[in-house]
Amino acid sequence: MRDLGPAEVATRDRVLQAIISTYLDFGYQRIETPALEDIARLQGGQGGENEKLIYQVLRRGLPDTVDADTPVRDLVDLGLRFDLTVPLTRFYANNQADLPRPFRSLQVGPVWRAERPQQGRFRQFYQCDIDMIGEPSVLAEAELMEATTAALGAIGLSNTVVRLSDRRFLTALANDVGLAGDTRDRFFITLDKLDKIGWDGVRAQLEQLAVPSRVVDTAVEKIAALQEVPAKALADTLANTVVSLADEVVEDLTTTTSSLDQLAEQRPLTWEFDPTLVRGMGYYTGQIFEIVLPGGSFSVAGGGRYDTLIGRTLGRDVPACGFSIGFERILGMHDDRIPRNATAVLVEPEVAITDALATARALRTGGHVVEVVRRSGKLGAQLKRLQAAGFMSFVPVRLTEGILTVEDPRTL
Amino acid sequence: MRDLGPAEVATRDRVLQAIISTYLDFGYQRIETPALEDIARLQGGQGGENEKLIYQVLRRGLPDTVDADTPVRDLVDLGLRFDLTVPLTRFYANNQADLPRPFRSLQVGPVWRAERPQQGRFRQFYQCDIDMIGEPSVLAEAELMEATTAALGAIGLSNTVVRLSDRRFLTALANDVGLAGDTRDRFFITLDKLDKIGWDGVRAQLEQLAVPSRVVDTAVEKIAALQEVPAKALADTLANTVVSLADEVVEDLTTTTSSLDQLAEQRPLTWEFDPTLVRGMGYYTGQIFEIVLPGGSFSVAGGGRYDTLIGRTLGRDVPACGFSIGFERILGMHDDRIPRNATAVLVEPEVAITDALATARALRTGGHVVEVVRRSGKLGAQLKRLQAAGFMSFVPVRLTEGILTVEDPRTL
Repeated sequence: MRDLGPAEVATRDRVLQAIISTYLDFGYQRIETPALEDIARLQGGQGGENEKLIYQVLRRGLPDTVDADTPVRDLVDLGLRFDLTVPLTRFYANNQADLPRPFRSLQVGPVWRAERPQQGRFRQFYQCDIDMIGEPSVLAEAELMEATTAALGAIGLSNTVVRLSDRRFLTALANDVGLAGDTRDRFFITLDKLDKIGWDGVRAQLEQLAVPSRVVDTAVEKIAALQEVPAKALADTLANTVVSLADEVVEDLTTTTSSLDQLAEQRPLTWEFDPTLVRGMGYYTGQIFEIVLPGGSFSVAGGGRYDTLIGRTLGRDVPACGFSIGFERILGMHDDRIPRNATAVLVEPEVAITDALATARALRTGGHVVEVVRRSGKLGAQLKRLQAAGFMSFVPVRLTEGILTVEDPRTL
Repeated sequence: MRDLGPAEVATRDRVLQAIISTYLDFGYQRIETPALEDIARLQGGQGGENEKLIYQVLRRGLPDTVDADTPVRDLVDLGLRFDLTVPLTRFYANNQADLPRPFRSLQVGPVWRAERPQQGRFRQFYQCDIDMIGEPSVLAEAELMEATTAALGAIGLSNTVVRLSDRRFLTALANDVGLAGDTRDRFFITLDKLDKIGWDGVRAQLEQLAVPSRVVDTAVEKIAALQEVPAKALADTLANTVVSLADEVVEDLTTTTSSLDQLAEQRPLTWEFDPTLVRGMGYYTGQIFEIVLPGGSFSVAGGGRYDTLIGRTLGRDVPACGFSIGFERILGMHDDRIPRNATAVLVEPEVAITDALATARALRTGGHVVEVVRRSGKLGAQLKRLQAAGFMSFVPVRLTEGILTVEDPRTL
């Protein structure tokens, strides 16, 4: 965890405001849930590996010492949220009667994961999620992609590449090559590591799972046949390569990619079907997608459809689809310092406090920073410090023969 | 803890942005510290009663069961912050080399207290603090009061009353009447309850502390002499009533109140010296103050000078002064729903998804919400729902003999 200083917060705020403002234009509305959730909910199996990284909160009112053999899990009842999706499903289940349908949710806020310290990872970091709840068609997917590429464009990250696939495609592929039930999940998990361990690594791990090499060969072959397929040929190639794939899945992909093609006429944007895309969370049920920047090796946003997740809380399934911007990652691309456009009212020691404040008050107009600063040390050195602190001008204030003198502003 | 829905977050955001924008104009700069702090720091004695209300976080990597007689305190290493002042002192100690002097800090964010559930109290709530660090004179106090009354004015809470006193006055009063060291703190704590238990209650509690009734009588007499003193007579009355009071304290009060008098010429604002004002936290060392609204029985903001608090972390004292707005309290005065100014693109079922999205895209301009909504059920009922959800207009979209028809916007 880390402190964020004035310049960092100013940059974060500007980036966040641009993203939020774009999402609001699409009808997404901000909600906010508490940082703490019931530990049972957080450990309900929706969070995958993240459930191992929960900061757990001690029950209140415990005795000073604990009895022998007390299970640690009995001592905790709350935990800090590790993502914004688990809280969203609870929020929707609790508040659905008051929400429009579909409900376009926007969430921005910190999440916590007790990760081992490593470069570029933080234990408290912001997520920025939009979700459309209650929309069964790929209207949701297509709009989420449009809104998120627009939000990234609003902060200068254009030329985005949308990579997409569909969990239903992966399931059909597994069916076609003859991968049995539980091996199938492990197959997806292994495939997800492709960019790290390469095809040889994937093969080796699959063979360790006792997947027959014939099955692995066929799977790899089909995946290879679906890589870098020209857009126009995608629907046919998919149908021919994965015979058990439902027509609906191909139609949905065609709708989503047609919408992306339309967008690409207006702004720099490309898309590609990626048969190796898995995305970590186990709850996805339909299209999955992520955004990468040209030449970038990692995604800056990711999401997918999860039609059965809300049902685990609500008791009946509600179609839902979400897209999450990796806020901390895109910030790394925004190191530019924002000029503060500030004026220093530079008061000599003999000036009365009330006069110093009144001078600043008279100069202050909305949106322009006017800050009272006392003269101290050598003038040149102080002016340099002011410049470094983002001041653009200063107004010398002194007493001349006992009379308050406010000079004209001088540029720094 | 509670969920905040779209309308609540929109109101909170608008109020917060108005406050933040005012504070930025005065040169305050936002910083952000993590929600979790070392438990030892949180329990360091700076937080008074709040230290009993800390959500404590379990150490990571504990065994599944705990050995007999393990002290619970050995199981925790972190806690959720209960205010923004303790983290600020750590932030300043860690980062002071990179910060301007004085440093004008603005903090907005959630804090957590494990309070018993009661009306209007939440276990996670926002605080909004400004602090000026490194300024020894009451320039800090006077500016904090100006900025905070301006921030409250920006959200429509004008006619503010500033109540102020000084811990140094309370100490001098205790000296004058002959209150010994430890009784003195209890005297302040008892006096702080005056509005709840009345003078009889204060007398009774002080006598329980074995304070001689002669001493109590003199204290009560002096306090009474200082209540509702006309502004012009305050300095003299103070000096005459509390003889051990240093001239400096009276001069500082005069400077602060002169500045408030200046402000009062420009906007509706009054001030009063309140000899019964104590304010809970033990760390205050100079002027203390709060803001009430006319007829209001509680304060909407409060603060004071704390010149020795940073020293407990940094090892050397740094003068500091802060003012905190009770954000959740002032929100209660802002129940007005904000119109969303949204247009619904109301698409009939036969319209293609790509056409629906393209229609919305063409209508969308920055700052105006355009949301795709599917036609469903009876039109009249759906239009009523849209109106209730904050839509101001709708655009019917249908296929007419196979051709996309986008009608003109209609007001709701």
